[in-house]
Amino acid sequence: MTETWFGQACGQPSQEHRQRAIARQRQLTKPEGALGRLETLAIELAALQAADRPQAAQVPVIVFAGDHGVAARGVSAYPAEVTVQMLHNFAAGGAAIAVLARELGLPLHVWDVGSRATAPIAGVVTDKARHGTADFSTAEAMSEVELRATFDAGRRAVDPVCAGGADLLVLGEMGIGNTTSASALAAVLGPLPLEELVGIGTGLDAVRMVQKKNIIARALALHGEAINAAASPGWEALRRVGGLEIAAMSAAMIAAAQRGVPVLVDGFIVSAAALAAVRINPGVRPWLLFSHQSAERGHVRLLELLQAQPLLQLDLRLGEGSGAALALPLVRMACALHNQMATFEEAAVADRDGRR
Amino acid sequence: MTETWFGQACGQPSQEHRQRAIARQRQLTKPEGALGRLETLAIELAALQAADRPQAAQVPVIVFAGDHGVAARGVSAYPAEVTVQMLHNFAAGGAAIAVLARELGLPLHVWDVGSRATAPIAGVVTDKARHGTADFSTAEAMSEVELRATFDAGRRAVDPVCAGGADLLVLGEMGIGNTTSASALAAVLGPLPLEELVGIGTGLDAVRMVQKKNIIARALALHGEAINAAASPGWEALRRVGGLEIAAMSAAMIAAAQRGVPVLVDGFIVSAAALAAVRINPGVRPWLLFSHQSAERGHVRLLELLQAQPLLQLDLRLGEGSGAALALPLVRMACALHNQMATFEEAAVADRDGRR
Repeated sequence: MTETWFGQACGQPSQEHRQRAIARQRQLTKPEGALGRLETLAIELAALQAADRPQAAQVPVIVFAGDHGVAARGVSAYPAEVTVQMLHNFAAGGAAIAVLARELGLPLHVWDVGSRATAPIAGVVTDKARHGTADFSTAEAMSEVELRATFDAGRRAVDPVCAGGADLLVLGEMGIGNTTSASALAAVLGPLPLEELVGIGTGLDAVRMVQKKNIIARALALHGEAINAAASPGWEALRRVGGLEIAAMSAAMIAAAQRGVPVLVDGFIVSAAALAAVRINPGVRPWLLFSHQSAERGHVRLLELLQAQPLLQLDLRLGEGSGAALALPLVRMACALHNQMATFEEAAVADRDGRR
Repeated sequence: MTETWFGQACGQPSQEHRQRAIARQRQLTKPEGALGRLETLAIELAALQAADRPQAAQVPVIVFAGDHGVAARGVSAYPAEVTVQMLHNFAAGGAAIAVLARELGLPLHVWDVGSRATAPIAGVVTDKARHGTADFSTAEAMSEVELRATFDAGRRAVDPVCAGGADLLVLGEMGIGNTTSASALAAVLGPLPLEELVGIGTGLDAVRMVQKKNIIARALALHGEAINAAASPGWEALRRVGGLEIAAMSAAMIAAAQRGVPVLVDGFIVSAAALAAVRINPGVRPWLLFSHQSAERGHVRLLELLQAQPLLQLDLRLGEGSGAALALPLVRMACALHNQMATFEEAAVADRDGRR
C-alpha cells in the first residue's frame, strides 16, 4: 500500500505553533479557559496550519455523489432517483448545502463520482468509474480498478482547491442508501455492533429499519471475513461494502491531509469515510476536525471510535456537508478571537488576583 | 405592579405564522426534521417575528456593566477594578464581545449602569443610579428608587435599538462578582439548592468557592424571607441580592418583549436576569431564545428551571454576551435555510417513498 499515492505519509501538526498558541490564549483578556472549546479549536488550527494566526477564510466545499445498488432493497425512505434530482438541486442553489455555501461565501464544487445519471449535469463535474455500486448484499460494491479510479477522482477534486490556498476543507455527500453503506463500513472496521449503528437514515419506520439491519447483516456475512483478512481492511471494506461517494471522500481526506489542509468532517457518512481513510493511512487522523454529532443513531459510536469531540449537537441528519458548514462560523470566530482579542498588557487589564 | 411599564403585557407569538412555517419546512428539499434544531428555531422565529421569512440580520448587542459590593469579600478570582478596565477594553474593541460583534457586523452598545467608574468613559453610555451595589451579604444591594432607576436605564438602552428595527437582541454583562449575585438570585427565586448553583466563576479554587457559597448562604438567611414575602419576589430579589447590570438586563428583556423583539440569551448571569424578568412579567418567556449552556455549574439547573434548550454547549464561561454572539450564525443560517431552500416541487425532487 505504501507505493500508492494514498499510502504516502501526511505531515505532522506544528508543536511549536501549538505551544505559541497556548501561550497567546493565556494572555488574552478573559479568564483562562473561559472560551472553552473555541480556545482548543484555535490552538489546534494554529498547529495544523503552522500559523500564529489561524484562519478559516478560504473554505471550499466538495460534495461527492454516488448511487447504491443496495437502495433497490428499500433501505431508504426515498427512491434512488433522488440522488440525481438532488445533483440538479445543488447546481441550481436550492439544496441546504448550496444555501449555506452562498451564505458563508464558500465555493461549492459538486462531483458526480458514481450517480446513475447518464448525461452530464450543468454545474456538476462528472468523474466516475461506474454508475452506482453493485448491491453489496449479494456482490462486491465495486472492483479493484473501479475503487482505484474513484480514489483518483477524489484526489482530482481536492488538488485544485488545495492549490488555490484552502485554509480548511468541507466534504459532503449525496447518495440514496448511503447510511446503509456507512453502517456496514463502521460495523466491519470498528468493529461495532450493528444494533448500535443502524438508524433511520432519511426517515425509515421501525419495520424497514429492521429490514435494513438484516440486509447489512447479510452483507457482513458475505464480505466480513475477506475484509478482515485483507492487507488493507479499510481499502477492502470500501471496495466490498462502500459507496463511490464514500470512497471519494476517504481519498479526498487523505489527499487533503497530505497537502496539509485540515478537513472539517460532517456527519455519519463522512465519519465512516474518515474511519476508512484513517485505517488506510493513520497519518490522516490529526487533520480531521469534527463538526457535529448527528441524530443518526450510529454516529455517536463512530465518533467515540475516532476519539472525536464534535462542536455541535443539533439533531441534524441531512448530510451534504451541511453540518460542517453550520459549524464553520464557530471555527471562524475561534480564529477571530485568537487573532484579534487584546492581551492583558495591551488593554491594561489586571490579570487574576491582581497580578500584572 | 401592573401600573408600572414593566408590568404591561407582552404580545404573543403568531400561531398563524408558526403553522405556515411548519408547513414550509415540510416542503423543503430535505427529509422532514433532518435539519433538527434549526427547523424548530426558524419556526419559532417566524412566530415571534410574525413573518413568513424570519430574519436575524439586524442584531444589536447591549452590554450592561455594574460593580458588586460583595466583590470585596473575595468572591472573584479577579479584582473589582477589572470591571472598569474591561469597559475600556469593550470600547477599544479588544474584548471578546467586541471582536465577535465586529466579525458578525453587530452594533455594540456598552451601558455603564453601575460600575465604580467616576469619570465618563469614551464609547460607553453612563446611566447609573449608583456606583456599584452594597454588599448584599450584610445589606440590601440597592434601594427601591435605585432599582426603579436602573430598570428605566435598561429600557432606555433598548428603546432606540428596537425603534431602529432589531430582528433580535443580544444582551451581555460585565461585573466582577456577578456569578455570586446570579447564584443568589437563582437560589432564592428557583428555589434551587445553593450546592448546585455555585461555580468557579472566573476561576476560583475549591477553598474560595466554599467561601463564596457561605457568603451567599449568609445573604439568603438575611434576605430570603423578605424576598419570598414580597408582592413581587422577582423584583425584591433583584433589589436585595441582584446587581445593577443584572437588573438592567431584566428590564431590557421585558422592554424588548413588550416591543416584540426576541432576545438571544447568553449564559449564567443573563439567565438569572431572565429568571427575574419572567417572575416579574411572565409574558417575557416566549420572547427568550437560549444560546448556550455555560460551563458555570449552576447554568444547567437554571436552564432546566426556565425549560430552555440552548443551541450550543462549548464549555464557555466568559459572559459579555459572547455565547449569544457565537450562536447567532446558527440563527442566521436557520433563517437562510428556511427562506432560501427549494421546495420539492420547485426542484422537481421526489418526496419520500416517491410521493409528489
